[in-house]
Amino acid sequence: MAKIKGFSKLNKTEKIAWLAKHFLTSNPLDIAREFSSYMHANAELQKVFDGISENTLTNFYLPYGVAPNFVINGRTYVVPMVIEESSVVAAASAGAKFWSERGGFHAEVISTVKVGHVHFLWRGDSEKLLQFFDTELKEELIASVQPLVENMKARGGGLKTLELIDCSHLEPEYFQLKATFETADAMGANFINSVLEHFAGSLTEEVKENKKFTGAEKEVDVVMSILSNYTPECLVKAWVECDINALGSFEEANLNAQQFARKFNTAINIAKHDVYRATTHNKGIFNGIDAVILATGNDFRAIEACGHAYASRNGQYASLSNCEIKGNKFIFSLQIPLAVGTVGGLTKLHPLSKRSLEILGNPSAKELMKIVACVGLAQNFSAIKALVTSGIQKGHMKMHLTNILRHFGASENEIQLAATYFVDKTVSFSSVRAYLNDVRGENFSTEKL
Amino acid sequence: MAKIKGFSKLNKTEKIAWLAKHFLTSNPLDIAREFSSYMHANAELQKVFDGISENTLTNFYLPYGVAPNFVINGRTYVVPMVIEESSVVAAASAGAKFWSERGGFHAEVISTVKVGHVHFLWRGDSEKLLQFFDTELKEELIASVQPLVENMKARGGGLKTLELIDCSHLEPEYFQLKATFETADAMGANFINSVLEHFAGSLTEEVKENKKFTGAEKEVDVVMSILSNYTPECLVKAWVECDINALGSFEEANLNAQQFARKFNTAINIAKHDVYRATTHNKGIFNGIDAVILATGNDFRAIEACGHAYASRNGQYASLSNCEIKGNKFIFSLQIPLAVGTVGGLTKLHPLSKRSLEILGNPSAKELMKIVACVGLAQNFSAIKALVTSGIQKGHMKMHLTNILRHFGASENEIQLAATYFVDKTVSFSSVRAYLNDVRGENFSTEKL
Repeated sequence: MAKIKGFSKLNKTEKIAWLAKHFLTSNPLDIAREFSSYMHANAELQKVFDGISENTLTNFYLPYGVAPNFVINGRTYVVPMVIEESSVVAAASAGAKFWSERGGFHAEVISTVKVGHVHFLWRGDSEKLLQFFDTELKEELIASVQPLVENMKARGGGLKTLELIDCSHLEPEYFQLKATFETADAMGANFINSVLEHFAGSLTEEVKENKKFTGAEKEVDVVMSILSNYTPECLVKAWVECDINALGSFEEANLNAQQFARKFNTAINIAKHDVYRATTHNKGIFNGIDAVILATGNDFRAIEACGHAYASRNGQYASLSNCEIKGNKFIFSLQIPLAVGTVGGLTKLHPLSKRSLEILGNPSAKELMKIVACVGLAQNFSAIKALVTSGIQKGHMKMHLTNILRHFGASENEIQLAATYFVDKTVSFSSVRAYLNDVRGENFSTEKL
Repeated sequence: MAKIKGFSKLNKTEKIAWLAKHFLTSNPLDIAREFSSYMHANAELQKVFDGISENTLTNFYLPYGVAPNFVINGRTYVVPMVIEESSVVAAASAGAKFWSERGGFHAEVISTVKVGHVHFLWRGDSEKLLQFFDTELKEELIASVQPLVENMKARGGGLKTLELIDCSHLEPEYFQLKATFETADAMGANFINSVLEHFAGSLTEEVKENKKFTGAEKEVDVVMSILSNYTPECLVKAWVECDINALGSFEEANLNAQQFARKFNTAINIAKHDVYRATTHNKGIFNGIDAVILATGNDFRAIEACGHAYASRNGQYASLSNCEIKGNKFIFSLQIPLAVGTVGGLTKLHPLSKRSLEILGNPSAKELMKIVACVGLAQNFSAIKALVTSGIQKGHMKMHLTNILRHFGASENEIQLAATYFVDKTVSFSSVRAYLNDVRGENFSTEKL
């Protein structure tokens, strides 16, 4: 269990050799061969993947799949999804198909405002600072970032508002310089952070140089300058609606359309009130959302943090989706902040992200917001539909069984036979191994792969 | 923009051909070759990856790297991380190294309780149902799942508590059967869901058959049976501590140890009070957490949903980490619910997840909880350290520049020269392309890859 200095300076082969020597028991050559087997045959391209992160040893494979038949605002999309959980792509596809036969998905972008702050401490009469900001500083700060903002302006974005907020009720001497931005088709993190760091420098200088301020007043102590991933005004709404009777009947659960609609609505209401349910409910929405976020080279941690913080905006963590039964209409909707980009970051760097965007018709950031929200809604619909009708274990365990069988190198014939055998039995690695050993005879190893 | 029936029934080649024909402009053969280039050379192994999800066309590569020098409770780990964002692995490694020289990380598991519910509607006198539960039903339900629970018991887990909760104040006629579980080294989703669906069936039967109940009372209307991803009692705490003076000085920001500690503490306080900051702050924690979650075959949507819901448990979304300055001590900690597994699910199915667990010494679920929490804390420490000293743009943009240069096939020499040139310039695809065209001359294409 060794410590090491200068690990990042070793080349990939040396890193793997050191790791194998100190932390693995297998033959180091086998380890090197295994890691090598996941690398791309094109060495130049592999360098691109290696450069995305640090201390990279190989590539981690996640399944890249697609969900067809997403009709959104009248246009049909095939949506690329990257996800390691079984049933997610199947559920998105099923939801897409169901609603493609009932008017499709509807979506609209409500706003696309991004936010960032310079957090700083300042000791003095806050009125004096606020007045200086209004009369002089604000204009100077805005002027000072013009060179940085120029490019973004040409693309239709730029700095939107700038305000100074006295936050000393939260923390002594604490102020925020709060800026809002439009970032066109970029997620905008680098742009915003650059502008904010520039603001911080100018703010410090202007206050220090100005004759209004004396002594401690001259000292702006910048704590940090950073965009916020909380973007409640970068918001999109997606919804589906149809006559209740058009929902059809659900024989597996003995429910007619009216009963299904009521039960579905109850499930959503529970997720509005109970944090235990809300968490899992929203987790399901993000199953769909994150799969598209990953496939398009966006940052799922940013999307998750923002969405969940938004889910708690009214003081209790609650469902992000909403159901209404209005007379004879069934309406199911999702309103969620999604700060995504279709340029910048990894979107064009990762060859498959670039390809994903092409599959989606090279959408603008706004269009991608709509697509992502609809996938989240489709995912949620399929999950709730399964939960209130047949339950989720049946379908899920079938897929899980197949995965375990494949792991043991089962043939298609063996997979079919096992499906019948396990219909009323518990699926686990040990039970499947025991079953396979049994049908194959003792001499056939299940540790094939 | 075509719709399609039976897409999932097509084989991979047919899926790709259909997609290329209807949604892509490139030559279908080139598309097929591209997707094929990301597949594993071992066809049997590729089937395992294809079987993890649905409609899979190929594998999406995410960089697989490691962060060395994590000293946790006295033991040194190398931590595998899968992440598409630059700087994350570097920051984790830097945080690990910093604290390895100051006593290392400390971590303890507070509890490992998992939760699930049968959500149902029932019309009648709730006291009557509650009494039936206490006197008869509870025991019957517990007995009915013994065959399902047996295996888990042998592994040290099982059903822990079972209660009936009247939730009619939330929704008319709404009750919960709430069960808690210990699931040993498994995350436990399949086990819990199987038990809950069984409970739902038994509950419905027992109430229907019992002579106490008449008319509508006999009807238990199960809305859904499902585990909760909100596990506030599956909780781990990680922390670091040292004498303030041992923090050293931070010359890049002209801060001595005392000043750094105060500024760091202020940054954490801001994240406790301001939702805009808290969201980004916690996002940074999950940068580290999710990278390990992915590398070990766990489910990051579950981890994210739970962590963020937990961050809002006191009515306002707030920082998950905490800083204390106690006399001469600097203490930085993270308390977070982490329901992870080291058996079941994808953990052993994905060959690199299995390898990740081996690199970590084949930890128990509890040990993995500690490791993951420490990586989250290290990540947070490095992010806040960068923010309150040099800012994050400098380091981040340097990596971003290298990525773009690699995308354009730049040589190591060109990368070094560019680093000097861009030290005071804006880094973007277009500015880097313009620069490369300039130094290479007009005839050298930058669209190399």
